[in-house]
Amino acid sequence: MSARIFDKVALIGLGLIGSSLALIMRREGLCGHISGHARSEQTRRTALEIGLVDAVHDSAAEAAADADLVIVCTPVGVSGAVAAEIRDSLKPGAIVSDVGSVKAAVIADMSPHIPDGVHLVPAHPIAGTEESGPRAGFAELFEGRWCILTPLPDTDPDAVRRVEAFWRACGSDVEIMAPDHHDRVLAITSHIPHLIAYNIVGTAADVEEVSEQEVMKFAAGGFRDFTRIAASDPTMWRDVFLHNKDAVLEMLGRFSEDLTALQRAIRWGDGDTLFKLFLRTRGIRRGIVEAGQETAAPDFGRGRMDHDGGDESG
Amino acid sequence: MSARIFDKVALIGLGLIGSSLALIMRREGLCGHISGHARSEQTRRTALEIGLVDAVHDSAAEAAADADLVIVCTPVGVSGAVAAEIRDSLKPGAIVSDVGSVKAAVIADMSPHIPDGVHLVPAHPIAGTEESGPRAGFAELFEGRWCILTPLPDTDPDAVRRVEAFWRACGSDVEIMAPDHHDRVLAITSHIPHLIAYNIVGTAADVEEVSEQEVMKFAAGGFRDFTRIAASDPTMWRDVFLHNKDAVLEMLGRFSEDLTALQRAIRWGDGDTLFKLFLRTRGIRRGIVEAGQETAAPDFGRGRMDHDGGDESG
Repeated sequence: MSARIFDKVALIGLGLIGSSLALIMRREGLCGHISGHARSEQTRRTALEIGLVDAVHDSAAEAAADADLVIVCTPVGVSGAVAAEIRDSLKPGAIVSDVGSVKAAVIADMSPHIPDGVHLVPAHPIAGTEESGPRAGFAELFEGRWCILTPLPDTDPDAVRRVEAFWRACGSDVEIMAPDHHDRVLAITSHIPHLIAYNIVGTAADVEEVSEQEVMKFAAGGFRDFTRIAASDPTMWRDVFLHNKDAVLEMLGRFSEDLTALQRAIRWGDGDTLFKLFLRTRGIRRGIVEAGQETAAPDFGRGRMDHDGGDESG
Repeated sequence: MSARIFDKVALIGLGLIGSSLALIMRREGLCGHISGHARSEQTRRTALEIGLVDAVHDSAAEAAADADLVIVCTPVGVSGAVAAEIRDSLKPGAIVSDVGSVKAAVIADMSPHIPDGVHLVPAHPIAGTEESGPRAGFAELFEGRWCILTPLPDTDPDAVRRVEAFWRACGSDVEIMAPDHHDRVLAITSHIPHLIAYNIVGTAADVEEVSEQEVMKFAAGGFRDFTRIAASDPTMWRDVFLHNKDAVLEMLGRFSEDLTALQRAIRWGDGDTLFKLFLRTRGIRRGIVEAGQETAAPDFGRGRMDHDGGDESG
């Protein structure tokens, strides 16, 4: 029995997600031919060198020609432009999908360029690392992670089923969600965490009387966890914030409101308010571990350092 | 050559730090006898059961009697009360130390109770995990981590040298710092990161239209990193915030100011401001890895899950 789901898959964008998709498709034999395109010549050259895909093309349109599935793996800010570029080379019955962290804006940008008879099935795999580029990919990236599909009400159900089968074959669990709801869920579970991680790292670097060297030396007190997230791809994340503006601003408003309440509790010595919150948040982590979305090992099981790491000493 | 630095060491408090100290002292033979006290009967019973220390005492005063080094390993809020309790049983020439994440307030609380001829050498090992309690300890906790000593100008230099030798024998690097400076460095590298981690986890749990189950399911987008820190000991952290109020409020003011600037950039579509910050923060992480305070493995090398984890997909 062949695992093949599509004859030809085109990857537009060969960063962490695109390269991981290439590797898992190869490993599992999910398609007959993988074509790829990346905007940067350097990335295209690397992709050729490491044999990531079967053919590397200089343009997105060439890569997408004759593909049964085209996956746009670029920062969300250019997904509309990519759709415009490939529209004339899409074959009838083709499926266009993406991996963007924002769904409503991406759909608004891409759908005007999707020809009749071509199916747009937006997708978002909740997976990644702080690394980026074509060498960062690995076949296991999507294993046990969720992939959210946000088809429109009139999307061909068969196309949705094929994309769902594809992601399951990549090792993911699949959830169907409305685009707006996706954007609000991700705003709080991903976008705001990234924004505040970037922000605290910037704030720390700016404190005049604490040197950057001190910040780095004593990072094991908690700060270093944030720097990992704040090392994520700058272009990708700029685009996420600009394209999920409304949900991000709303969740940020809630975050700031809650933080102001904590600030007030600290100023007035209200230990009960602090204690109650700190007790409550412990349970959430347990839930995430139980949901299979996190290691149960203390300190993330950080185990590949010269010396074992630690945290939370204050 | 014996590794023994002290004849008798008393541990007041047998949580993560106290139990880790017991284990490393045993492994390295750093003292002849370890006495211990914990406020909770349950902890005292566990300590006996697992043979953590040589003798478990019902009161801090009994544990501290005849000790050459007394290490207060309690939440910082009770360090003054502990000092008052043990003052009459401290032998001349003894050293009293602690492991608190706040130094100025702890010194203010403890020093009035330190008898003449006894030396107070405050210490803070920058090490820990999100676990707590007497079973959470492990001998390697302090290995390669920094321990900051904040002696007062009139503290006996020989006592400082012995505490320094002790921490080096535990595997730590040692830095001497003024208490106020310590409190400001830790406010930005540890206390504020913890506060915002607790806060975002609370905010997420409260968003009405996103269920707690959804938050847990899709946590791999970034949120789960924060939940680890937000699973840290509630009592310890309440005390940290109440006792490092001024530095925490100042750093929190800076954080909020910077966050408001990002909020404004998002509202007005100012991608350059976002991009510039996101690019800059990448470098800080590299510095922490180079300083030996963090693993270089992507995604913390999270490797003990059933399936490998990921992050930063958005």
